[in-house]
Amino acid sequence: MSTPATPRNLPGRNRRVILSSRPVGIPQASHFTFDEASLESLAEGQFRVRNIYLSVDPAQRGWTNEGSNYSQPVPVGDVMRALAVGVIVESRHAEFPEGLHLYGWFGWQDYAVVGPQAVVTRIDVIQAPLSAYAGVLGINGLTAYLGLFKLGRPKAGDTILVTTAAGAVGSLVGQLAQARAFHVIGLAGDDAKFARCTSRFGYAAAANYKSADAASLLDRLVPDGIDVFFDNTGGDLLDQALRRMKTGGRIVQCGTAAVSQWSPTPTGLRAEREILTRRLIWSGLLVFDHSEDFPGALADLTGRIRSGMLHYEEDIVTGLLHAPGAIARLYDGRNNGKSLIYLGE
Amino acid sequence: MSTPATPRNLPGRNRRVILSSRPVGIPQASHFTFDEASLESLAEGQFRVRNIYLSVDPAQRGWTNEGSNYSQPVPVGDVMRALAVGVIVESRHAEFPEGLHLYGWFGWQDYAVVGPQAVVTRIDVIQAPLSAYAGVLGINGLTAYLGLFKLGRPKAGDTILVTTAAGAVGSLVGQLAQARAFHVIGLAGDDAKFARCTSRFGYAAAANYKSADAASLLDRLVPDGIDVFFDNTGGDLLDQALRRMKTGGRIVQCGTAAVSQWSPTPTGLRAEREILTRRLIWSGLLVFDHSEDFPGALADLTGRIRSGMLHYEEDIVTGLLHAPGAIARLYDGRNNGKSLIYLGE
Repeated sequence: MSTPATPRNLPGRNRRVILSSRPVGIPQASHFTFDEASLESLAEGQFRVRNIYLSVDPAQRGWTNEGSNYSQPVPVGDVMRALAVGVIVESRHAEFPEGLHLYGWFGWQDYAVVGPQAVVTRIDVIQAPLSAYAGVLGINGLTAYLGLFKLGRPKAGDTILVTTAAGAVGSLVGQLAQARAFHVIGLAGDDAKFARCTSRFGYAAAANYKSADAASLLDRLVPDGIDVFFDNTGGDLLDQALRRMKTGGRIVQCGTAAVSQWSPTPTGLRAEREILTRRLIWSGLLVFDHSEDFPGALADLTGRIRSGMLHYEEDIVTGLLHAPGAIARLYDGRNNGKSLIYLGE
Repeated sequence: MSTPATPRNLPGRNRRVILSSRPVGIPQASHFTFDEASLESLAEGQFRVRNIYLSVDPAQRGWTNEGSNYSQPVPVGDVMRALAVGVIVESRHAEFPEGLHLYGWFGWQDYAVVGPQAVVTRIDVIQAPLSAYAGVLGINGLTAYLGLFKLGRPKAGDTILVTTAAGAVGSLVGQLAQARAFHVIGLAGDDAKFARCTSRFGYAAAANYKSADAASLLDRLVPDGIDVFFDNTGGDLLDQALRRMKTGGRIVQCGTAAVSQWSPTPTGLRAEREILTRRLIWSGLLVFDHSEDFPGALADLTGRIRSGMLHYEEDIVTGLLHAPGAIARLYDGRNNGKSLIYLGE
């Protein structure tokens, strides 16, 4: 009947980042508070993960907002939903022993008590640095790989347009496309970023999409039209790109970073005539729908990293205190590459 | 060196419907004129088709307008592009003998001089009435069949929403869906039409989409959401249907009949968040992209007609004089079923 003892070798408290009010649009630091909770005891089949890298992802905006999304919004008062890389420090599950590193749904907190359903991948620490498993070998690499090849289905000679081309996903799409000799064009949100698109990320040409109106940018960059549009922004760029798609073109909707508010629903140029007359295929991408393809994609991505053929950038800050403002920082475009929060090994 | 003689048993003249000015939006009778031309002589490999049924199709609007479409616009001064059922009356091609009935690109005129590339299907007059080959066994049946099954890919238990549900395509989609036990809901443009959706065309429920605003109609008709949206209208109905698609839903864009003007481009509710968060797939359908699937689809459709399992309606007027106003009549919704112009056997 006594309270379970605090596990050995662990501090007795779990620092957590709590969603304290419901944002409309992009969550700011003021929408979060910190608390500290006692460590929960484990039920049979559970294990305790100590987080090492917390992931910061554009999708977290959608998880905090009311309304249409692919998952229920994070309840106000709950730990902020997040992917993370961590290590098992206590286990009541035979297949998940202490010391195993994992990537999964562990939240913005020091410790998570979870079962196997929260695990996305098991980490092989021999293959690549731990942080890579939260980005290039995690949601970002999988999104780039499966969005490009499975949904985009490029054919020889195709022109591929990518938005947020210097970001954690776009920087990989450019390199993966270049490696297979596609003509890949990037749009990024500032001058330093678009320069890296061509110098580091495989893009044949790139531009700062804030430097001119969407129509004239695209007239210059893709004068012969677009076969595959890998879109992370939505908005005007999407409206104009739709009008430049070639017959049979594929649009992969991976994000909507350029639309800051969805309530009330903003308007744009009607799309149905573009879809119909040039027989486009416009698909929404959530990488977790394609988990059966993860092993093949990760094997290819891991091989490319180990052979030095795939550059990836990480923007790492240390300490849980950085978490509340991290999503807004991402939408401001102040990160360079994959945004991570390091909590210590 | 003499002029070729007028073929035997033929009148010496070909009455033609000429596009005389470029419409913006829906072509009216005033955009056409009649002329009469001498019969051309045949080159080797050509044959002369005497038209029996001219087809009137919503797609003809797009063929007459400037701007984005899947084919070059009909030049002003040319015969109006159209599908038709006809019979070969003179031939210089061994595989296309005199007396053979064909469905193909023969234009709004009495006689067409064409080669094999203008032929869509060869007609077996034993299987079904001639007129059927211009509709249920022509572009309309193929569009319904391949749009529903190949692009829509319904699964057991799916809810399918169809616009212009009593039209030449929609009336077949309803029956094909019902025959495989899908829950199929129709929207039509007047009260008499929507009543026929449930009494004749297999729909579980239907409504006149002009009887209420799109949002409240859909709230009532598809309260649990839509798996497949077979859309012939575009516009507000599409905007509202997009917001009611279930995760993984498919939108088949087959027409845009509810949008009367595309210049300047009208605006509507932004779609990218709907596409992304519920991973929709929105595809444009032009049935001629899928010609490799025609034989299988036609075999199934022909079997259903011969066994009395597929109702189809035809709205036939007699005489070439009806052609110029026929497209506008279609967009006004004054036709009941497939619109054809009969020129005599």
